[in-house]
Amino acid sequence: MNHFYNLADLSGEAIESLLLDAAHYKNQPLGKDLDGLQFALLFLAPSLRTRCSFEVGIRQLGGGVSMLEPSMFYGLETRNGVRMDGNSAEHIKEALPVLSNFYSGLGVRVMAGGKSAEEDLSDRMFDAFRSHAKIPIFNMESAIYHPCQALADMLTIRELLGSHKGRRLTLTWAPHPHPLPTAVANSVLLAASQLGMDVTLTHPEGFELPESITTKAEELSRTAGGQIRTTHDQKVAFKDAEIVYAKSWGALSRYDSTEAEQELRLSNSNWRVDRSLMNASSKAYFMHCLPVRRNVVVTDDVIDHPRSVVIRQAENRLHAQKAVLKSIYCNLK
Amino acid sequence: MNHFYNLADLSGEAIESLLLDAAHYKNQPLGKDLDGLQFALLFLAPSLRTRCSFEVGIRQLGGGVSMLEPSMFYGLETRNGVRMDGNSAEHIKEALPVLSNFYSGLGVRVMAGGKSAEEDLSDRMFDAFRSHAKIPIFNMESAIYHPCQALADMLTIRELLGSHKGRRLTLTWAPHPHPLPTAVANSVLLAASQLGMDVTLTHPEGFELPESITTKAEELSRTAGGQIRTTHDQKVAFKDAEIVYAKSWGALSRYDSTEAEQELRLSNSNWRVDRSLMNASSKAYFMHCLPVRRNVVVTDDVIDHPRSVVIRQAENRLHAQKAVLKSIYCNLK
Amino acid sequence: MNHFYNLADLSGEAIESLLLDAAHYKNQPLGKDLDGLQFALLFLAPSLRTRCSFEVGIRQLGGGVSMLEPSMFYGLETRNGVRMDGNSAEHIKEALPVLSNFYSGLGVRVMAGGKSAEEDLSDRMFDAFRSHAKIPIFNMESAIYHPCQALADMLTIRELLGSHKGRRLTLTWAPHPHPLPTAVANSVLLAASQLGMDVTLTHPEGFELPESITTKAEELSRTAGGQIRTTHDQKVAFKDAEIVYAKSWGALSRYDSTEAEQELRLSNSNWRVDRSLMNASSKAYFMHCLPVRRNVVVTDDVIDHPRSVVIRQAENRLHAQKAVLKSIYCNLK
Repeated sequence: MNHFYNLADLSGEAIESLLLDAAHYKNQPLGKDLDGLQFALLFLAPSLRTRCSFEVGIRQLGGGVSMLEPSMFYGLETRNGVRMDGNSAEHIKEALPVLSNFYSGLGVRVMAGGKSAEEDLSDRMFDAFRSHAKIPIFNMESAIYHPCQALADMLTIRELLGSHKGRRLTLTWAPHPHPLPTAVANSVLLAASQLGMDVTLTHPEGFELPESITTKAEELSRTAGGQIRTTHDQKVAFKDAEIVYAKSWGALSRYDSTEAEQELRLSNSNWRVDRSLMNASSKAYFMHCLPVRRNVVVTDDVIDHPRSVVIRQAENRLHAQKAVLKSIYCNLK
Repeated sequence: MNHFYNLADLSGEAIESLLLDAAHYKNQPLGKDLDGLQFALLFLAPSLRTRCSFEVGIRQLGGGVSMLEPSMFYGLETRNGVRMDGNSAEHIKEALPVLSNFYSGLGVRVMAGGKSAEEDLSDRMFDAFRSHAKIPIFNMESAIYHPCQALADMLTIRELLGSHKGRRLTLTWAPHPHPLPTAVANSVLLAASQLGMDVTLTHPEGFELPESITTKAEELSRTAGGQIRTTHDQKVAFKDAEIVYAKSWGALSRYDSTEAEQELRLSNSNWRVDRSLMNASSKAYFMHCLPVRRNVVVTDDVIDHPRSVVIRQAENRLHAQKAVLKSIYCNLK
Repeated sequence: MNHFYNLADLSGEAIESLLLDAAHYKNQPLGKDLDGLQFALLFLAPSLRTRCSFEVGIRQLGGGVSMLEPSMFYGLETRNGVRMDGNSAEHIKEALPVLSNFYSGLGVRVMAGGKSAEEDLSDRMFDAFRSHAKIPIFNMESAIYHPCQALADMLTIRELLGSHKGRRLTLTWAPHPHPLPTAVANSVLLAASQLGMDVTLTHPEGFELPESITTKAEELSRTAGGQIRTTHDQKVAFKDAEIVYAKSWGALSRYDSTEAEQELRLSNSNWRVDRSLMNASSKAYFMHCLPVRRNVVVTDDVIDHPRSVVIRQAENRLHAQKAVLKSIYCNLK
């Protein structure tokens, strides 16, 4: 089954091929690659960019798209052998095979619950969808991966720098009033590593990304001839960066205590990306996946600067996702 | 006006013709039978299968489809002559003619309220929609009928057995934590009778289907050369069945007391369909309209058995409904 | 940027041209004028007619349409320079440019808040959408204008009377349990003035329309050779009318006190349009934009009379809006 779950499941060549197709669609938005196919999108967490870009992209290629109502899926039973006399009215063992008969593909967003680090890292809900579907499932952000975002970001970087290998990307933690998932940071780190970028990861102590992710990133980086550095000194990390990618996430190290996590997070509000930090590099582009809280994550003068490319990143979601769909369905057809 | 409300309004030949068209669409899902037509779907009760299958089916035949927001219709005034100074902001006398000018057809789901047996049996709300519309209204489940489900089920049975006449279908009541409507059971009973099946209806005392339905079913059965037997002995009913169709519904006989109804319903939890019941027939297929509460209505080993065809039934919704739409709009065009 | 905000921004000739195109689409509903274009509709207040007619109209002309979820926009930050550490997760400075990259146009409904007359009259929210978009924004009803409604109404009047200039339209205030916005009344008054109609505006004291609107209407009327009369005597206003257009709105003069406004409004319940009022003219057509509260705004015998054209007005929304879209996108292409 040709699911699209995590960019690290693909070879570097496959990613390059997706980027080429994405660039093609950027020039030529309309096509027939999905003619006659019907898709469903399920957002168990809210979405603006992802939802609109998938909906538009599918229609631009001739497909049809249904927005599934999340309320139908909130209580979906996923356990085996349970006696369903509670709130769950339907089991995933029926719901997914049924959808598989109506649609050619299903996009799913199931974000991290933020309650249990172990459960989030296992990506249990997304995995349940994948394992019960008879059609390709594509990841519109799971508890730990956001491959569509990372692919769009790699397209953006290639447009800006012309290449990935050896180019200097600084991925910096940023402040936020809420403990956000690590999915975007994970996927950007993995993708940049896989394409051989020279990555500097910087965050306060306690905000380490999941070890399974950083270990995988180092392996990918070695294979691709890149490198990864980690530092708690944000100022050093920004020096000579070609790309500054800002993203907030919650402190996994304190997942078991809402208060302790919040205290650690709020104590690092000085990690906000501002002009003086950006001045550590003469020419860094500023990236962020959006939505962004202005003047908390990043100051107005950075995000409104000509070298801020956040709107272009969002636009590239459309093109990158069409390339993903093409790779799934033009092989199937 | 060419509404689609209740299979029993059609002749046996008309149903056969729908089944032929449904089989055709199963082989040939794409077409132009609804080209240029726009449809609206209104679900005043939640839906997964019905909603997705109508949405996909309409688009596969070239039509466009709008999902109406139920909130716009909850307070819709339907009484004549009333002074509308309360919560209702709109009267059905305006809403339906207006929709009739925008759309070529409107699918409506208005499930049984479960408060008044008399009101539910009159199908008052669905009738109000029908009588104020200037376009065909199709029944996506009303208080007493679910003709799309029954039509898909008859298609499934023909695929399995090759014919309907004289084939043995057992329609069994099943336990459930909530008092469900009788619509599916009514429509399956009527359709099986109309196609001359040999029907055994089994349920605990107090769970009689509405008398108007059973009387009509007997009349249809006589005309078609079939028969209907009713028994309170579930084990006897399962003997030599070719099809076991399980469905729960609330006790109409105790509609006036929530507590008494619940007590009677919960006291019959042993009506759950399990392997030992199924063993009363050497080869019965298991059917259910979904969603199903596993291990309450039916045990895992029955629904997961190769002779369980619940997923196929759901798939056939798509094909059957396209045949219904074709019958309405290809005659109109 | 080719936004569609207020009919008064257009010349009389441009409006005539829209009416011609609308009449054309009424005869010929299908076309390719929006082929390959994608649109988004955002309703920050509920809608039946507007939503369905835009959705259907766009698809009938070959476009695709997404219904944006209002929940994504309720907390949208619109202020400059603010530190976003509260409830707002996104700034309009990102949201609108992002949507502009996915869609060719965005329809927006942001109705009057009813809290501050000054804020409503400034149409601040709609203006924020317009000023941050890189694509045409079309007004599906703002705090003070509803140009799509007024255009459909002018089409209806031309169908009924054959012309606008010098024809007698009476725009009458009507009772209602809630303080409704003035947008429809404003836009009808402006459009009728612009097309040189002989307008009589009648309402109880305290229900004056915004001065900026009436001043503009008088200017347009003079230019077009029409006239506007205002009276508090409803019976006189109905005399010899060819069109009676009923609409309720809240008392702007008492916007600062919910209680005082309600008291004034409810004390005028005798302004309801009934048969005896209509009898003041031998042949007036009755118009209302819908939804309408029967027997509060207008009696059954008036709205159900053959000279009531409320359903036709609603139908004409579809045709008028397609003409608007054509005027924007066929010039762009």
